[in-house]
Amino acid sequence: MMGDVGLKYGPVIFEGVSPNAAFMTRVKRFILTARTKYQEVQILELYEYGRALVLDGYIQSTENDEFIYHESLVHPITVTHPHPKKALIIGGGEGATLREILKHSSIDEAVMVDIDGELIEFAKKYLDFMHQGSFNDPRSKLLIEDGYKYVKDIAPRKYFDVVVLDLTDPYGPEISRKLYSKEFYAMVKSVMKDDGIMVTQAGNSFFYPRTYARVLENIKANFSIVREYWVWIPSFGYACNFIAASDTLDPALMSEDEVNSRLKSRNVETKFYDGALHVSFFKGKVLLGKVPEE
Amino acid sequence: MMGDVGLKYGPVIFEGVSPNAAFMTRVKRFILTARTKYQEVQILELYEYGRALVLDGYIQSTENDEFIYHESLVHPITVTHPHPKKALIIGGGEGATLREILKHSSIDEAVMVDIDGELIEFAKKYLDFMHQGSFNDPRSKLLIEDGYKYVKDIAPRKYFDVVVLDLTDPYGPEISRKLYSKEFYAMVKSVMKDDGIMVTQAGNSFFYPRTYARVLENIKANFSIVREYWVWIPSFGYACNFIAASDTLDPALMSEDEVNSRLKSRNVETKFYDGALHVSFFKGKVLLGKVPEE
Amino acid sequence: MMGDVGLKYGPVIFEGVSPNAAFMTRVKRFILTARTKYQEVQILELYEYGRALVLDGYIQSTENDEFIYHESLVHPITVTHPHPKKALIIGGGEGATLREILKHSSIDEAVMVDIDGELIEFAKKYLDFMHQGSFNDPRSKLLIEDGYKYVKDIAPRKYFDVVVLDLTDPYGPEISRKLYSKEFYAMVKSVMKDDGIMVTQAGNSFFYPRTYARVLENIKANFSIVREYWVWIPSFGYACNFIAASDTLDPALMSEDEVNSRLKSRNVETKFYDGALHVSFFKGKVLLGKVPEE
Amino acid sequence: MMGDVGLKYGPVIFEGVSPNAAFMTRVKRFILTARTKYQEVQILELYEYGRALVLDGYIQSTENDEFIYHESLVHPITVTHPHPKKALIIGGGEGATLREILKHSSIDEAVMVDIDGELIEFAKKYLDFMHQGSFNDPRSKLLIEDGYKYVKDIAPRKYFDVVVLDLTDPYGPEISRKLYSKEFYAMVKSVMKDDGIMVTQAGNSFFYPRTYARVLENIKANFSIVREYWVWIPSFGYACNFIAASDTLDPALMSEDEVNSRLKSRNVETKFYDGALHVSFFKGKVLLGKVPEE
Repeated sequence: MMGDVGLKYGPVIFEGVSPNAAFMTRVKRFILTARTKYQEVQILELYEYGRALVLDGYIQSTENDEFIYHESLVHPITVTHPHPKKALIIGGGEGATLREILKHSSIDEAVMVDIDGELIEFAKKYLDFMHQGSFNDPRSKLLIEDGYKYVKDIAPRKYFDVVVLDLTDPYGPEISRKLYSKEFYAMVKSVMKDDGIMVTQAGNSFFYPRTYARVLENIKANFSIVREYWVWIPSFGYACNFIAASDTLDPALMSEDEVNSRLKSRNVETKFYDGALHVSFFKGKVLLGKVPEE
Repeated sequence: MMGDVGLKYGPVIFEGVSPNAAFMTRVKRFILTARTKYQEVQILELYEYGRALVLDGYIQSTENDEFIYHESLVHPITVTHPHPKKALIIGGGEGATLREILKHSSIDEAVMVDIDGELIEFAKKYLDFMHQGSFNDPRSKLLIEDGYKYVKDIAPRKYFDVVVLDLTDPYGPEISRKLYSKEFYAMVKSVMKDDGIMVTQAGNSFFYPRTYARVLENIKANFSIVREYWVWIPSFGYACNFIAASDTLDPALMSEDEVNSRLKSRNVETKFYDGALHVSFFKGKVLLGKVPEE
Repeated sequence: MMGDVGLKYGPVIFEGVSPNAAFMTRVKRFILTARTKYQEVQILELYEYGRALVLDGYIQSTENDEFIYHESLVHPITVTHPHPKKALIIGGGEGATLREILKHSSIDEAVMVDIDGELIEFAKKYLDFMHQGSFNDPRSKLLIEDGYKYVKDIAPRKYFDVVVLDLTDPYGPEISRKLYSKEFYAMVKSVMKDDGIMVTQAGNSFFYPRTYARVLENIKANFSIVREYWVWIPSFGYACNFIAASDTLDPALMSEDEVNSRLKSRNVETKFYDGALHVSFFKGKVLLGKVPEE
Repeated sequence: MMGDVGLKYGPVIFEGVSPNAAFMTRVKRFILTARTKYQEVQILELYEYGRALVLDGYIQSTENDEFIYHESLVHPITVTHPHPKKALIIGGGEGATLREILKHSSIDEAVMVDIDGELIEFAKKYLDFMHQGSFNDPRSKLLIEDGYKYVKDIAPRKYFDVVVLDLTDPYGPEISRKLYSKEFYAMVKSVMKDDGIMVTQAGNSFFYPRTYARVLENIKANFSIVREYWVWIPSFGYACNFIAASDTLDPALMSEDEVNSRLKSRNVETKFYDGALHVSFFKGKVLLGKVPEE
């Protein structure tokens, strides 16, 4: 990081971290550019991160660090549930969230609902390292449907043990905004069993403190136990926040040993997540930045 | 983070995160640009982070998030020491590391050694929120000296309880490189009491895994207890790693309550660090990225 | 321009060339940042261009290439006038346009009207190479006034031989927009002698073809002889257009020898402009780009 | 160009203009990324410029402004030759230089020599608007060969009336460097008829004054009549220089009417170039920038 080095010329992804800060990552090769009915999809090779999925100009996940995001999203709540059988994923087009859920041998049904069928076809074709065959697991049920509509009108009531909301950012594309609303969380609750647990990714609390606070409030209006945690994702250029919620289960009460023992009994193998990290997450402290006066 | 927003034009700091990724942060106002004998110093106002210190083109600390870095650097080892009296800081020109050390009422002498006297004058003049008068605390002793030389030739032997190495990155300017060497850590050990403890910031382990591994090895060659932790620093665009080391004291064994009770008994007030975060740090997991083939 | 070079890290000016293209130029040193009543002013040293004036985030002129802009703005019309005595400049805060006008020994009065008195004070203090003492020339009259108001209400009628409009871009800050209107050109005409001639800088016709066409039309509505020319300005990242207008004088009819002989008889010395370049300008071809569908 | 606009996020081409300045242009769609034996090839859609060819990270030509470059390269020398029949092009993989040469009905043979056969296949497939079928013109002879070797060992002596060197920049990829040497120009001269004329693109004289001066010197060492001209190319972010050379023909002596009359008699239709522009080119003034001390 000396003053005499610099960014090499060529194609880059130029990405916003906040309204006043941007991130540039060098692109090695372009594999796909396509516009689906819902969003612009790019699949490309980044010098630093390997193959990457980019939606509407924003890096969603990359070969070299996707495990940090997907393991942190899925396991804390799934491990907190003592016997999770029925799982629901909204979003998660790459199939990596599904992959992580299915690692828990207790799961006998994982419903994944993504609005963008074309995206899933691209993921199947170009992003094997993400889904790793999870779409073909007999326990998987893939629905191409609006997640909001699915939860509102289609899903069975009081059915799911764990619900994972794997969406674009709450301050991001319009497509995901309603999936962070108070109404939506009420409907999510209605499809969960009484002792179910849910989690949502929640963007970044430091750069978007107001949006984050609103999402947190919308969740608190519906659940009595709400836990926040975050983890740095290198390819995002910032830390990603998560919010877990339940009326009966509290991930913050799980000990390191309990987590490790459940992972072992369910045959879950991970690269990053384990009992110590679980404790670390729920002992961590979420930070809200100062929003610059506009 | 919608596709229809972008980075506003005007002056920015263009900063490398890794050889293949860069960060751009908008500048609101330029306060000082100067070249000292050792480095280029800039003090400026950033839209997102408030007033900032930039050395050789790299953001060192900013008004809105410096507490994350400085509290995380200083308190984990200082709180782990049961009765820290003598503290040594190498680097830390802004005075914020000194400020944090002095919060521990048990400290009766804090020696700060920085090679760049001009930088310290600038900090005194323009960065009040960093030092907050700590240079004038009667317990402070400021030496303008090469930290390497101080530890090698000048410092008393077996004298310090805590040593804080607050340096530019190990893959950064030449000026700091020798302060990450095996020889240097041996000398640091010689100025510490037998039950002393030290910490160094260690750059970023994900983007510079080889450099980080070398620094870790150099420390392990000298100390029997070595603990790693990291925290995301928003204005850096990445997480910052820290390595703590001692022959007798282990920060990973401190409980949440012990930490909180020591902070209370020493009248330490913080914005971010506390017993829960301490536990979170030492339960966390350090990640080494895949270095792209060059 | 090999793939293995890149842009060095550090502070840069990040500037828009068009809604889809930006320009980054490395900054060596910051000299001044200030907000006047009308605009944000920065004076800084650029690695490639020397000292520069930046208004509202846009480079206005730099030490190493300002002569291209200022000579191209002033001399074509001034040399076309056979005996220019009274000159009016609207804008031109740096004083370099005034400097060029005053080179013509026939000029006995040069009125410069700039709305931003603070800017002129900064120029006097930090930009000697721009004005080169022209503010102190006894023929100069400097008025701190809104150029629109001056031309509408204050200026004597049928008085000026040459009028130079040295403004920010027609698609730029609000402050200059009305100075490109049909009404304003009618008023400008009213303060010119019948055989007077005027020129305006007109931004860039390739990236802003609609705005340029509108400005051209506004001028054509008022003058019977209208000539367009342009020149590449390295520090702008694009070519700058100019439009000259008169009811009697035609710069396109001046021969190379006539231009050179007038320059000589008036003791005008230049770095760039001469008879050949004059002919080149009016034989050149203005290009309108294709505006991307938004 | 107001301070409140900015560059939209998403993929961009990040390109160097000089060692201290860079250019960013937004990419709409990626069509091809491939590595040939000689260079990296990208074909993509830019928001501002339409479809573009990028070699080794540098924009070579774009749909919306390629005519400026190709017409300016080819016609000034071809029109200066009173009866050009045999033409040689070195480089020019897109086929647009060939297209322009073939517009002159007097041409009965146009030999194009490009080292990169894969690039030409990509151009044939994806860049119709560049070549417009010129590869299929019965007068065209395409050779996949090293241009240096062709001129040295293969080409007939004293054969060509016009020679066009359409290469990557003289300070650019290694692949083109030897094609700007004194030895190469001597060999080029040997394959030209005594009254032949040649032209080379010569990069940018303002940002690379030393390289440009060396190329100019190398040409002057071989030809008695050497003429320089330049034109701004929007998608390059700078002006492109050209150098024409002959022992008998002087483009600077052609009048506007002569140029127009030859274009007409040879049925040449252009978008940009004509007699007035020809005169403008050779009355223009080439500028050498100040190279910053490194």
